Amino acid sequence: MTGTDRSRAVAAGPAPAIVLVEPQLGENIGFTARAMNNCGLSDLRLVRPRDGWPNDKALAAASGADAIINGARLFGSVEDAIADLNRVYAATARLRDMHRSVVTARQAASELRAHIGAGDSCGILFGPERMGLINDHVALADIAITIPLSPGFSSLNLGQSVMIIGYEWFQAGDDTPPRQLPERSPPAARKDLIAMFEHLERELDASGFVIDPEKRPSMVRNLRTMFERAELSEQEVRTMRGLIVSLVEGRRRPRRKTLKEENDKSEQGEGT
Amino acid sequence: MTGTDRSRAVAAGPAPAIVLVEPQLGENIGFTARAMNNCGLSDLRLVRPRDGWPNDKALAAASGADAIINGARLFGSVEDAIADLNRVYAATARLRDMHRSVVTARQAASELRAHIGAGDSCGILFGPERMGLINDHVALADIAITIPLSPGFSSLNLGQSVMIIGYEWFQAGDDTPPRQLPERSPPAARKDLIAMFEHLERELDASGFVIDPEKRPSMVRNLRTMFERAELSEQEVRTMRGLIVSLVEGRRRPRRKTLKEENDKSEQGEGT
Repeated sequence: MTGTDRSRAVAAGPAPAIVLVEPQLGENIGFTARAMNNCGLSDLRLVRPRDGWPNDKALAAASGADAIINGARLFGSVEDAIADLNRVYAATARLRDMHRSVVTARQAASELRAHIGAGDSCGILFGPERMGLINDHVALADIAITIPLSPGFSSLNLGQSVMIIGYEWFQAGDDTPPRQLPERSPPAARKDLIAMFEHLERELDASGFVIDPEKRPSMVRNLRTMFERAELSEQEVRTMRGLIVSLVEGRRRPRRKTLKEENDKSEQGEGT
Repeated sequence: MTGTDRSRAVAAGPAPAIVLVEPQLGENIGFTARAMNNCGLSDLRLVRPRDGWPNDKALAAASGADAIINGARLFGSVEDAIADLNRVYAATARLRDMHRSVVTARQAASELRAHIGAGDSCGILFGPERMGLINDHVALADIAITIPLSPGFSSLNLGQSVMIIGYEWFQAGDDTPPRQLPERSPPAARKDLIAMFEHLERELDASGFVIDPEKRPSMVRNLRTMFERAELSEQEVRTMRGLIVSLVEGRRRPRRKTLKEENDKSEQGEGT
């Protein structure tokens, strides 16, 4: 999917730090950086990455998020990595036997926006790929985040976890309207629409479309409903008027010889 | 992250088909299948995958979503792949110059739940990794979906796009409470909490904690607020009572000799 426009400045403002605890694969650090870039996050902190740092595979997988990789900070312990933060969330799979509040990713995003709006420094811990965060590291956080997913298959890889929590962070601050109407010429005025309906119905009457006159009122209602659903523009109403005239005139005019058979068939009328 | 529990049945019910149009890398087909599995989706359709089908790399990357890979259906055209559907969405990056409604991923999920609830067969088109869907394929859909992301960096890879749209599909049908309280012993009754406050304040008065009597009311209020915020359980109130007694008694009792210096210091009292 395209959609990257590097000419537009990213004015992200303060955002949570992403803290990867003992990440194993460089690729996953890269995917994390790319997901952060997608979501307006920039502060990446690494606690004891297994394959050392810097890591070429991380840079290769970051796919343009070089600034985040190059700006990543390295720490020897989780305690050091979160020392300056005053609100810490821990991304976990389902917790077992932990006396701890758990929020969904969506709820976490909304709370993080509120805390950061109030001036707090926030961060989110993510554990190693294979095992996730150990309980002692979860215990360093204020609260745990879980991502509700299909009960049998809630296991996510590291990049996907960061992507979803980052996505929710971005949505919580985004004001894209849920539905955007297409660019188009102005919607038709009712009088033009009604004139079109009456034109169509007149020509259908003339053509013998309705065989049983008792069915005419419901046919008219159904046709009008169908065209109303299409939310026609002024231009489209004009096009429809032309279309009706063309079909009617075409039927009356002699057609080109090569269309003779089709012509014969359509001359028989359509009935209901 | 762990969290996979294969013993729990997945009763997903009807869900949208995922249609990958000319996917390039087998890995991305695998990541798509894994994301579908996470999100309760199972109907995978492939239109002219570049590297042929079946594809070992797809199976390797699917990470347990073998049933989805093995059940994927192959089609020669987008038209064939969506022939049986009656509601089709197209996942796209920002559309340019298209006269077409666009919805967010969240809005699409809510609409898809409504359509599927009404018995419609639905599907979502995703384009090739490099370019996304061409306009002619978008035009085969009823409506376009975009994922609101950081303006400069809204480009997602195929697996991430499927993950987010699938995630929103799952959330739209999920009833996980936004915040779940931890398992714990019953919250303390107010009378026990107040008794604890009064015990603490009595001992603080006795110890000379408040030097300026005018400040006592605000000190009491602040301490009570602090403990109220912790939402103590019955058990924790009993622990706190024991803790107060221990600190008070310990001060009065002779300490072990090795702690003599510390002892001398704490005997001086703490002031405000």
